[in-house]
Amino acid sequence: MIHITRRERFNAAHRLFREDFSDQQNLEVFGKCSNPKWHGHNYELFVTVKGDIDEKTGFLVNLKKLSKIIRDHVIEKLDHKNINLEVEFMQDKLASTENLAVGIWNELEPHIKGLDAELHCVKVVESENNFVEYYGDRNE
Amino acid sequence: MIHITRRERFNAAHRLFREDFSDQQNLEVFGKCSNPKWHGHNYELFVTVKGDIDEKTGFLVNLKKLSKIIRDHVIEKLDHKNINLEVEFMQDKLASTENLAVGIWNELEPHIKGLDAELHCVKVVESENNFVEYYGDRNE
Amino acid sequence: MIHITRRERFNAAHRLFREDFSDQQNLEVFGKCSNPKWHGHNYELFVTVKGDIDEKTGFLVNLKKLSKIIRDHVIEKLDHKNINLEVEFMQDKLASTENLAVGIWNELEPHIKGLDAELHCVKVVESENNFVEYYGDRNE
Amino acid sequence: MIHITRRERFNAAHRLFREDFSDQQNLEVFGKCSNPKWHGHNYELFVTVKGDIDEKTGFLVNLKKLSKIIRDHVIEKLDHKNINLEVEFMQDKLASTENLAVGIWNELEPHIKGLDAELHCVKVVESENNFVEYYGDRNE
Amino acid sequence: MIHITRRERFNAAHRLFREDFSDQQNLEVFGKCSNPKWHGHNYELFVTVKGDIDEKTGFLVNLKKLSKIIRDHVIEKLDHKNINLEVEFMQDKLASTENLAVGIWNELEPHIKGLDAELHCVKVVESENNFVEYYGDRNE
Amino acid sequence: MIHITRRERFNAAHRLFREDFSDQQNLEVFGKCSNPKWHGHNYELFVTVKGDIDEKTGFLVNLKKLSKIIRDHVIEKLDHKNINLEVEFMQDKLASTENLAVGIWNELEPHIKGLDAELHCVKVVESENNFVEYYGDRNE
Repeated sequence: MIHITRRERFNAAHRLFREDFSDQQNLEVFGKCSNPKWHGHNYELFVTVKGDIDEKTGFLVNLKKLSKIIRDHVIEKLDHKNINLEVEFMQDKLASTENLAVGIWNELEPHIKGLDAELHCVKVVESENNFVEYYGDRNE
Repeated sequence: MIHITRRERFNAAHRLFREDFSDQQNLEVFGKCSNPKWHGHNYELFVTVKGDIDEKTGFLVNLKKLSKIIRDHVIEKLDHKNINLEVEFMQDKLASTENLAVGIWNELEPHIKGLDAELHCVKVVESENNFVEYYGDRNE
Repeated sequence: MIHITRRERFNAAHRLFREDFSDQQNLEVFGKCSNPKWHGHNYELFVTVKGDIDEKTGFLVNLKKLSKIIRDHVIEKLDHKNINLEVEFMQDKLASTENLAVGIWNELEPHIKGLDAELHCVKVVESENNFVEYYGDRNE
Repeated sequence: MIHITRRERFNAAHRLFREDFSDQQNLEVFGKCSNPKWHGHNYELFVTVKGDIDEKTGFLVNLKKLSKIIRDHVIEKLDHKNINLEVEFMQDKLASTENLAVGIWNELEPHIKGLDAELHCVKVVESENNFVEYYGDRNE
Repeated sequence: MIHITRRERFNAAHRLFREDFSDQQNLEVFGKCSNPKWHGHNYELFVTVKGDIDEKTGFLVNLKKLSKIIRDHVIEKLDHKNINLEVEFMQDKLASTENLAVGIWNELEPHIKGLDAELHCVKVVESENNFVEYYGDRNE
Repeated sequence: MIHITRRERFNAAHRLFREDFSDQQNLEVFGKCSNPKWHGHNYELFVTVKGDIDEKTGFLVNLKKLSKIIRDHVIEKLDHKNINLEVEFMQDKLASTENLAVGIWNELEPHIKGLDAELHCVKVVESENNFVEYYGDRNE
């Protein structure tokens, strides 16, 4: 069993708020992140998969294929987008880093299975001071 | 003569576009950065000032004062904001990193003079792959 | 179950030595780190907590609260201090990164409980080449 | 139980290919990494060991000793070398990051035991976008 | 006048040696870098251009065009290559970082002119501890 | 003319204060940095030299020699030391980053001349947010 991690990046706008809150309530709970006119981040995404090394290639997975899966199913949907308004898998959810990590996991997992590997961790870095890791429902 | 640099950070949303262009024209010129629903970045700002060391303190400038000037006059206006819609000194300008660097220089310069130092460079890092440096009108 | 990590930083002086050793013995065991006149580091502290996402906020914990807890109970005590002489929770202990990580865990844990989350890991980075991780007594 | 990690670095040339493949087949499977005239990397190696803190020293392990073990048994063999042609423990294996991590684990493990600690993880970073972690046979 | 910098990366093998030296002489002058079986690096390339902001776009240069020029004329020739054996513009030269920076400058300069900007600096980072900057013949 | 930069690192304790000030006055001017029991940093030092490429070696300077000069004449004196109490070239000076950069320049300059190169810049990084650059008396 070995783990391999691929980093990809995306830049996006978002806002933390609840429609059933007033602007004042949103400010109290979400602080500056509730700004109604949006703000944004350079997000870093680290996707870790695990499994056995394929003796024929020396690879756990072909990183080009893993990178393509992440770009096709996640980066394409998030990069240079507004997470609240334009990202289908984030509709009806607060656009927090926590929900983003879970949402990305759900987008990726079906496609990782085709690689003879298992999705192990989705890590989303929002800033140099904050990041979230999600290991799926069954782990931990 | 010595140079000292202070780093500060801000997260903001923006969009590159011209009102006199169609969405299609904006896409051709500005690519994904023209997304009408915004995107955003974690910006890093490096402000370099130059001058002589004050023998009484060993400092060129007191970094706490320099940091406060940058935060009061620049970060406060940009952090968790929409550069196109909410930043007064960027109105009537394209929200490019180049224009941002010049705009930040103009905001900062009058306040640096009070420090017995001279503004030398404003560097704005938009991503790990791109940054802009502005040395003012008179340099170079 | 999700994990979120907050980074904070502190600068401190310390010295590795045993009072019951001679300077020579301390040098043999602790090397340059035993310098009787101290040396110091820029430490980075990564605090990871785990738990469930609160559906009302999309947060595992409010990062402002987590950051305030870390600053009030750890950074305030360590930043710009001498770890051997001035940090109460490090008295009677060698000022190693290992003991620092355990000490920080013990300072933080009672306060994390108030957040509806569980302390998962305290990581202390002493230099770009060395870091320590502590997962508490019960983990592992 | 605590974990401590030491980073070391090495620069090496390598090539991903199978002798029983044509150049064309190698290109299809391994891409540019199959270039017959080699390419190379600045590799970063993170070695994590775990165990109990020695009350006499405050250390899990003496990092100078850990660093010397890594340099003597791994870095010396890899640094400024051709992994395919010159590294004994990588003969008869594809020179992938995955195989490198397993090979390094096998070189290190017998020597870590002398430190009253247990090898926990070997992490090999090939680029800012890719890294592999190996926790040994028995972990996970 | 403003400066903008674009980072690109390439991985390559090389060797520092003179054909008219024995292996022993090469070892004395070039150290481990003379290994006859090659070694390699993850190189980072920072290309800085300068000029005036185009009022129509807010850009000094379109970074997509600058990136494409760098990739077409430099990265394509260096990435996953052997600098000594496969890079035309490095033939008859020692494969040092200094010569690489000058060689890259000469490859790039004719193409930057088409951008209404001037090449200002080519910076080549060979490792976290070493980098070279070249400002062309006429600067300084 | 080309520039090459070598990075070295040192960890040291220091304190910013004037003997002719009370503790209270020192606190007002120097803030937490005046702590009488010291604090410390992981300093990074970047030394840039300039000159012409030696056609015989492809080098501006032999980096091993440059590194040895920096370690013998600067790092040896600063690493794991108390800058105020133990560093001869910093006596009678405030232990600020500015004075440190000038002091390091003066230590290095006579030894660089032996390399057929000219010292161009001494950059001292005190934290991820602050650094000082000194170009000598005659530059600028």
